[in-house]
Amino acid sequence: MISKNMKILVEKSAGISALFSEGKRMREVLGEENVFDFGIGNPNVNAPLSVNKTAIELLETMDSLALHSYTDGTGIPSVRQAIAESVNRRFQEEYTGENIVMTAGAAGGLNVILKVLLDQGDEVLTFAPYFSEYDVYVANAGGRLIAIEPNVPSFLPDAKKLEEAITPKTKAIIINNPNNPTGVVYDVQTLGKIAGVLKAKEKELGTSIYLISDEPYRELVFDGATVPYIPKLYGNTIVAYSFSKSLSLPGDRIGYLTIPSTVQDFQEVVFGAGVANRILGFVNAPVLQQLVVAKCCDEKSDIAFYDKNREILYSALSQYGFECAKPQGAFYLFVKSMEEDEFAFVNKAKEFGILMTPGSGFGCKGYVRIAYCVARDTIERALPSFEKLAKAYQK
Amino acid sequence: MISKNMKILVEKSAGISALFSEGKRMREVLGEENVFDFGIGNPNVNAPLSVNKTAIELLETMDSLALHSYTDGTGIPSVRQAIAESVNRRFQEEYTGENIVMTAGAAGGLNVILKVLLDQGDEVLTFAPYFSEYDVYVANAGGRLIAIEPNVPSFLPDAKKLEEAITPKTKAIIINNPNNPTGVVYDVQTLGKIAGVLKAKEKELGTSIYLISDEPYRELVFDGATVPYIPKLYGNTIVAYSFSKSLSLPGDRIGYLTIPSTVQDFQEVVFGAGVANRILGFVNAPVLQQLVVAKCCDEKSDIAFYDKNREILYSALSQYGFECAKPQGAFYLFVKSMEEDEFAFVNKAKEFGILMTPGSGFGCKGYVRIAYCVARDTIERALPSFEKLAKAYQK
Repeated sequence: MISKNMKILVEKSAGISALFSEGKRMREVLGEENVFDFGIGNPNVNAPLSVNKTAIELLETMDSLALHSYTDGTGIPSVRQAIAESVNRRFQEEYTGENIVMTAGAAGGLNVILKVLLDQGDEVLTFAPYFSEYDVYVANAGGRLIAIEPNVPSFLPDAKKLEEAITPKTKAIIINNPNNPTGVVYDVQTLGKIAGVLKAKEKELGTSIYLISDEPYRELVFDGATVPYIPKLYGNTIVAYSFSKSLSLPGDRIGYLTIPSTVQDFQEVVFGAGVANRILGFVNAPVLQQLVVAKCCDEKSDIAFYDKNREILYSALSQYGFECAKPQGAFYLFVKSMEEDEFAFVNKAKEFGILMTPGSGFGCKGYVRIAYCVARDTIERALPSFEKLAKAYQK
Repeated sequence: MISKNMKILVEKSAGISALFSEGKRMREVLGEENVFDFGIGNPNVNAPLSVNKTAIELLETMDSLALHSYTDGTGIPSVRQAIAESVNRRFQEEYTGENIVMTAGAAGGLNVILKVLLDQGDEVLTFAPYFSEYDVYVANAGGRLIAIEPNVPSFLPDAKKLEEAITPKTKAIIINNPNNPTGVVYDVQTLGKIAGVLKAKEKELGTSIYLISDEPYRELVFDGATVPYIPKLYGNTIVAYSFSKSLSLPGDRIGYLTIPSTVQDFQEVVFGAGVANRILGFVNAPVLQQLVVAKCCDEKSDIAFYDKNREILYSALSQYGFECAKPQGAFYLFVKSMEEDEFAFVNKAKEFGILMTPGSGFGCKGYVRIAYCVARDTIERALPSFEKLAKAYQK
């Protein structure tokens, strides 16, 4: 008697749960030390010490009523202002608190902004491979996600394909930079072309096309790569940010939307985001977490740890014969399956104790995602298994 | 370019914001000390001391990674178990953690359970007057809220009217006990009749009708009143609970759903609630708050404070000639307007510095809501203004 739609989602999720049960079963059969789980993107470095320190200070010194009260749907004004100033320092913008809306992570922020923008049946475009939750987020707001096919092997978004995909019903496009699952960082030239297409199409169709940039991995970049600040290229851009990765606070549910004044109907969008936070049941981003990130937003957890993991794993896998574009961001490798059906490849890997995620879940068949946000030791001990897996295909 | 639906919601909310601006304007004209704001239901007694103490202990002693990690969509198993045991102690049930799903307050919980249950076009019934957010919560999940007209002056739900309102499309009914805006506590006889109607209709129509009991005010009862535990009367009941009022933690966004094993398709509903938490963007209820309420769930903030406020205000208003059923719960008085159009009455009250909320917003014309969760001093100083307001209608 649950809804038809939820029934489908439950079955899909049961599939994922089955994967976890599979991991458990494998641990029982192979032994805990012989199972290497690269399935989940859960940060595994500690939050900076200042996070807990700031939270304790607030709990010890702040007026208790204020610390636990409802806030405005858009967030606490002083917190919004502090975040705006941090964004200004980093991207040479001139935002005020009015440009920031505090949300329950980027997942909350995306649901909020889609609720604000989408009418029933509106189309939202994204580039495959893409974070699979976009499908449900867009559907929650009555829209339809359309994925533009992947650009193999660079996995950079293709402006030409975007141009062909835009229709009068295109209300928004979602970009994820750095990208989950590929780890690819979209460069300024590529994004410039995307911006050009969007501007031309807005003019041609007489519509407004919002660019939603989902940036939870913004801080996780390596080899000196930089993540372009998209509002500079395209004014009608809203950035969804989360502290889940940069401060290692995924369970805290805290992030924000940046809504520049150049966004179409800026004031209504900001006000609408506050309303959406309320009516979607978030009401407000959790207060203590709002106050903590206002003080800690310029800090970072230990990004170098992920970088080292990446170096070790990437160079070993390349040596074993795996094909993979070296990622410059996030904490994923997106590796070509060694047989056409990547589900069979994923199953073969299990024989060697390796758990990874099929690319089909991200709209990209024939690839697998390896989340390397794991203990260093797990990576090092997994290398012989990866080598055996490669050899199994090289006979 | 925001969505049509959001445009309507924004305009409505702008109306509410205008009320707040009005309060600000009034403070400027009449002076801060001459404005008495009874508009908002924001708890104004402190959280029990143990709440901050527990949070600090967790931040000081717990493994930082675990304290900030994602949790399962249904919540942390040990937290779910602790809540189940607390519910068992109070209502002599035999729940396990499996019957509890941690949510971002009751607002989060209601959105989650409606997402699990509703198909496009499903009907959800509620009794007016009702918490006005139910409209949008039900609409978020594709359903349609139908309010059963109020039972004046008792404001108890009417089983006969419910019987007439149920159709084959009725998927759920929402009850709010104690009630916002009336403060009325639904008694066991009344609820027994409701349960009888639901059981008979389930049989007659061959459908399943879920009862969703929204109980954020469960602990706020006076004069020895008790809030019946509805799952004992009707097995197909899901309780949405929040610590916003009982522990004065509205900004923390923490609560839970109780899903008894007697609920139709219990296992799918629980699993679906975890999925819904994830896909709606909550992902999980904030971790620190989950762990805090697991330890503090048997405590209460100072309920006696609200009781005293209620006594002072109710007896004075009655004496001045206002008509109002004495509420036994929550922190609201629902008072009959002294003229037919309660908006005019609300405006007249402003002349005396009093801010209150028109009943139409709760689906009940001709009444106003007075939220007495304010400082004692505000109530005492407001009494002469209430007296003048009454006299203005008694000439």
